Amino acid sequence: MITENTKAVPQWEGFNLGKWSAEGEVNVRDFIQRNYTPYEGDSSFLQPATQDTLKLWSEITSLSEKERKAGGVLNADTSIVSTLTSHEAGYIDKPIEKIVGLQTDEPFKRALQPFGGIRMAEEALNMYGYEIDPSVKEIFTKYRKTHNDGVYDAYTPEMRLARRAHILTGLPDTYGRGRIVGDYRRVALYGTDYLAACKEQDKLHLNGSMTPDKIRDCEELSEQIKALKSLAKMAAKYGCDITRPAANAREAIQWLYFGYLGAVKEQNGAAMSIGRNSTFLDIYIERDLARGIIDESGAQELIDQFIMKLRIIKFMRIKEYNELFSGDPTWVTESIGGMGADGRTLVTKNSFRVLHTLENLGPAPEPNLTVLWSQRLPVNFKRYCAEISIKTSAIQYENDDLMLPEMGDDYCIACCVSCMRVGKDMQFFGARANLAKCLLYALNGGADELLLDKNTGKPLQVSPEFMPVTGDGALDFNDVIHKYENMMDWLAGLYVNTLNVIHYMHDKYSYESLEMALHDTNVRRFFATGVAGLSCAADSLSAIKYAKVYPIRNEYGIITDFKIEGDYPKYGNNDDRADDLAVWLVKTFMTKVKSHQTYRGSLPTMSVLTITSNVVYGKKTGNTPDGRRAGQPLAPGANPMHGRDTNGALASLESVAKLPYEYSRDGISNTFSVTPASLGKN
Amino acid sequence: MITENTKAVPQWEGFNLGKWSAEGEVNVRDFIQRNYTPYEGDSSFLQPATQDTLKLWSEITSLSEKERKAGGVLNADTSIVSTLTSHEAGYIDKPIEKIVGLQTDEPFKRALQPFGGIRMAEEALNMYGYEIDPSVKEIFTKYRKTHNDGVYDAYTPEMRLARRAHILTGLPDTYGRGRIVGDYRRVALYGTDYLAACKEQDKLHLNGSMTPDKIRDCEELSEQIKALKSLAKMAAKYGCDITRPAANAREAIQWLYFGYLGAVKEQNGAAMSIGRNSTFLDIYIERDLARGIIDESGAQELIDQFIMKLRIIKFMRIKEYNELFSGDPTWVTESIGGMGADGRTLVTKNSFRVLHTLENLGPAPEPNLTVLWSQRLPVNFKRYCAEISIKTSAIQYENDDLMLPEMGDDYCIACCVSCMRVGKDMQFFGARANLAKCLLYALNGGADELLLDKNTGKPLQVSPEFMPVTGDGALDFNDVIHKYENMMDWLAGLYVNTLNVIHYMHDKYSYESLEMALHDTNVRRFFATGVAGLSCAADSLSAIKYAKVYPIRNEYGIITDFKIEGDYPKYGNNDDRADDLAVWLVKTFMTKVKSHQTYRGSLPTMSVLTITSNVVYGKKTGNTPDGRRAGQPLAPGANPMHGRDTNGALASLESVAKLPYEYSRDGISNTFSVTPASLGKN
Repeated sequence: MITENTKAVPQWEGFNLGKWSAEGEVNVRDFIQRNYTPYEGDSSFLQPATQDTLKLWSEITSLSEKERKAGGVLNADTSIVSTLTSHEAGYIDKPIEKIVGLQTDEPFKRALQPFGGIRMAEEALNMYGYEIDPSVKEIFTKYRKTHNDGVYDAYTPEMRLARRAHILTGLPDTYGRGRIVGDYRRVALYGTDYLAACKEQDKLHLNGSMTPDKIRDCEELSEQIKALKSLAKMAAKYGCDITRPAANAREAIQWLYFGYLGAVKEQNGAAMSIGRNSTFLDIYIERDLARGIIDESGAQELIDQFIMKLRIIKFMRIKEYNELFSGDPTWVTESIGGMGADGRTLVTKNSFRVLHTLENLGPAPEPNLTVLWSQRLPVNFKRYCAEISIKTSAIQYENDDLMLPEMGDDYCIACCVSCMRVGKDMQFFGARANLAKCLLYALNGGADELLLDKNTGKPLQVSPEFMPVTGDGALDFNDVIHKYENMMDWLAGLYVNTLNVIHYMHDKYSYESLEMALHDTNVRRFFATGVAGLSCAADSLSAIKYAKVYPIRNEYGIITDFKIEGDYPKYGNNDDRADDLAVWLVKTFMTKVKSHQTYRGSLPTMSVLTITSNVVYGKKTGNTPDGRRAGQPLAPGANPMHGRDTNGALASLESVAKLPYEYSRDGISNTFSVTPASLGKN
Repeated sequence: MITENTKAVPQWEGFNLGKWSAEGEVNVRDFIQRNYTPYEGDSSFLQPATQDTLKLWSEITSLSEKERKAGGVLNADTSIVSTLTSHEAGYIDKPIEKIVGLQTDEPFKRALQPFGGIRMAEEALNMYGYEIDPSVKEIFTKYRKTHNDGVYDAYTPEMRLARRAHILTGLPDTYGRGRIVGDYRRVALYGTDYLAACKEQDKLHLNGSMTPDKIRDCEELSEQIKALKSLAKMAAKYGCDITRPAANAREAIQWLYFGYLGAVKEQNGAAMSIGRNSTFLDIYIERDLARGIIDESGAQELIDQFIMKLRIIKFMRIKEYNELFSGDPTWVTESIGGMGADGRTLVTKNSFRVLHTLENLGPAPEPNLTVLWSQRLPVNFKRYCAEISIKTSAIQYENDDLMLPEMGDDYCIACCVSCMRVGKDMQFFGARANLAKCLLYALNGGADELLLDKNTGKPLQVSPEFMPVTGDGALDFNDVIHKYENMMDWLAGLYVNTLNVIHYMHDKYSYESLEMALHDTNVRRFFATGVAGLSCAADSLSAIKYAKVYPIRNEYGIITDFKIEGDYPKYGNNDDRADDLAVWLVKTFMTKVKSHQTYRGSLPTMSVLTITSNVVYGKKTGNTPDGRRAGQPLAPGANPMHGRDTNGALASLESVAKLPYEYSRDGISNTFSVTPASLGKN
């Protein structure tokens, strides 16, 4: 027995009780399903920003301006290591702030987060003219090992080489892996005391034969419980008692935000998404509206100010990171709308309010407002989405009809496309394997087409010495496919093992104790691999199959260029000859990935989702058989190669749609700009 | 290929080469076998201490005196965390010190070693009037978790309870586990560069599927390599280049001692033994004597000064620790003599020299000089041992004839009885399970006979609620045995799992990177359990079987005393009726221990070896059916209960000798004082 009588929880008055309120249960979805109010109406109820909101936003805008002028960073901690309780309360303009809480004790002051890697933390500071406190550096060098140090202690020479050659690339080995989304709603609905008590209960069930796995689980639960207690201390600094459930809408938003704030204080992850919160919060807002505690303007004010806080989430990042991602994204993705398993839409008034912040505060890339799009969404909501998209270009769309059958109706999007059931799934982020480069390795038996050995001056051998393509005749498709499969076998194994090292060390040295405290203890783990260069590889195979591609070798016999005779079908034109090769690539590589043992029994998934990093990956990839020149960008995600989808927008989309979602569960991205012309005349 | 041409190693000139000098090999035993000179002569060659030695020893004596007067600790680090390179060189009297190196930068200044547990480190300082530097406390509380914290995060409530009730006791969960003996000879024979290169080679073989086990192995190897490099830096502070092999006897002793010094700087372990070094060093001394570099007096001076350094190894310990061990032992055990597998004795002149330090410097408990006794030892050596034993009572003897067939001829003793092949075996120290108390639990269904629940005032239930003995009739032997087996099943399982937690966490938070760098990478691991209260439990069973034992119950129905009618055979009188019960206990408990999964595939062993802690264990054990009163000491190790071995010394020894070594590989201790009277008239 955990709570004495859940029915007597005063903060739950007016809610329909059920599974979610039973003793020992944590079930936010059930709470939502029993209490939310679908909204099919239009946007006319929406209210403009309040005076306080506008004033606060102008203060933030002015800080942003100052930050830009200061070269990108306004202030940075150099000696206080960020933990949940490392800082005193910080405010922008306390009297008018409805939702409070900053990452440090001052707005725009960036936190020092060395657990992922002290070198990255130090470099990031140096880049902006700051010096890390020598004692912090000493602690994280002599006494406290970081994730990055752990990884490099366990990497094999082959892993280091593959990383250096960029056939594996973007690996989260120098910083926080991110992509884990805590169920921050739990803080609001249950309060931290109850959540900690449930975790204590879970810990009691970890007994019997104490294997290393079980011991680790025990320790992690202890860390989770400590994190919940620390979170309550953090909130107390702002005068909030989050040990108990939130009593009204303001508290619900505040408690939930504290949960998220704790996560970003603890982790500087590659993507720190926030989940699927709008409809959950709508329940509290509806109750307050019914009780007359707030009016619509007050509701919008809370949401505006909440979103404002999410807009100013900032991390210290190194230059390479910013280059890889073309900026400094934090991926505070909030998933909005979608349909319920029972056929009711999950769109509520609050779905509108959240999108409305793009009007009240103006457009912004963060938080990454992501609409879970279904054909069955209410037409008024669809219309409002279109309206805001046209106005701001700031909405991301994901296919709810595709994901709902797999993930149920309480999933969210982490980063840009990774879907996970909130609080029930987590993922081990895996960055990407470069399939275009892998094809070149297949041709050259694993010698890199660009990198030279420093000592010998010869091309660097990255994989074991596989049989290369011999002779100067046109490449034989079957021979290439055979060699490509062998090389993919090698790459998939190395990739999985490299990620195994990374995630073992992340758990060991930079465990997300708060985020995981806001997950079920028996969480499902995804092992999220990814591929880059899909369309380039598919087109290259198509060229080899349908045109004549002659290898051109350098002085060492390495194929570094190609002569192409004749034309070939290209991926992106709804031509099965090329598109089938892309499908084959996705299926084949994923099948090979799946054949390996993944860390913690995680479920292998794959994504085709580079959005900006394709540019960097292209720089590290030599001339390809499709005619692409060395160094030129690969296409983003599942996009056709730039300019080759000449059959119109629909054909391009049809090609992408052929990629099998079952083999690419972690998501497929297609960067697509719609202009009236591209839609054709009908 | 690791070294270019081992045959050209100048420091090896004059040695017989072989396996040990082949490329990529580390094989100290082979070096010894090919190069040592057995000595069958008498002690007449021995020389007294030199003037420098006497002067140095008197300085140490005077420091010891000061330390005693200062209340036990002369000085202690409160802010510098001990690592291999944390301190500058320290000397006692530099010009006359032949063997240099201190644990800190001053003699008798104790090091601060918080990795095992920050609380223990702090308490130990406080106990002697020192305050830990708050920043160190902060680091080891906020950023760097310790072994102790890790263990407590993973302990189950049952483990905590069993520990509190002292049915499991002396567990190494608040401090370093110790009992690991690096092969310090390797530093002298090979130098650290070669050893590190061999470890790099070993690391290359860790590839393929990266399971957590393999990742951990990779990381540990990296830590080992770093430790070897740090050790070289430590030695360089004393002006010594240990990256290369030692070139003469002084260097060999010095290099070897640096290896050990590094280990005690890194670890504050429960027993920090040094191995089996005398005969190894004899080879260097013989070569120097032959070369005329030193004379016998010079050889003795090196050994005297080496031993002197071992005598002043000191750790900061808490009061409870000192109580448990009746003092502050460091267990710098050096194993001497023994026989070789080929029939030659391993006694050399240096075996005499090491024992001779007890004459030159006077007797001392440390280093714990342990003679590996064989009936086949040279008679002159036996005679000298007897002479020194009579003079100083400072030699420990172990049965080489028993251990040699199991362990070969290059094992050593860790602590007091644990034997391990040097550099090839390590052990997970497991302290003890109290079998006498376990019998009381069997009678009471797992309710503790002494501890009361703070809330209810009732006897604390420690095990699950097993069926207790019912009724007030005389205890039925078969019923008791049945219940005892059930309780031992529970205890063995809990014990193994508790140790699994402890050693997982010790590896995680306080890994012995230097000691393990001086082991083979594919080390054999022992899982060293132990039992306490053997004779008390055996006698209790004997009383139940051969006399009439009536239970006396307290108000809660718990059996807290016994009425014994009639006499019964007692263990220690060469009476099979009682002795067989002791044998049964050892076999039964060990068999139950073996049935459980042990950490890292370690090999379960058992010891019967409490030497002083039996007093503390007795305090926590209620009245027993053999008539022993609550709180009275249990017998040490395998000793009969005090005063009950009334059949003479030989009968007592015969009883102990019946305990099956195969079920108690980690050793059986018998504390035995020999007086002329106890030997009888023949």
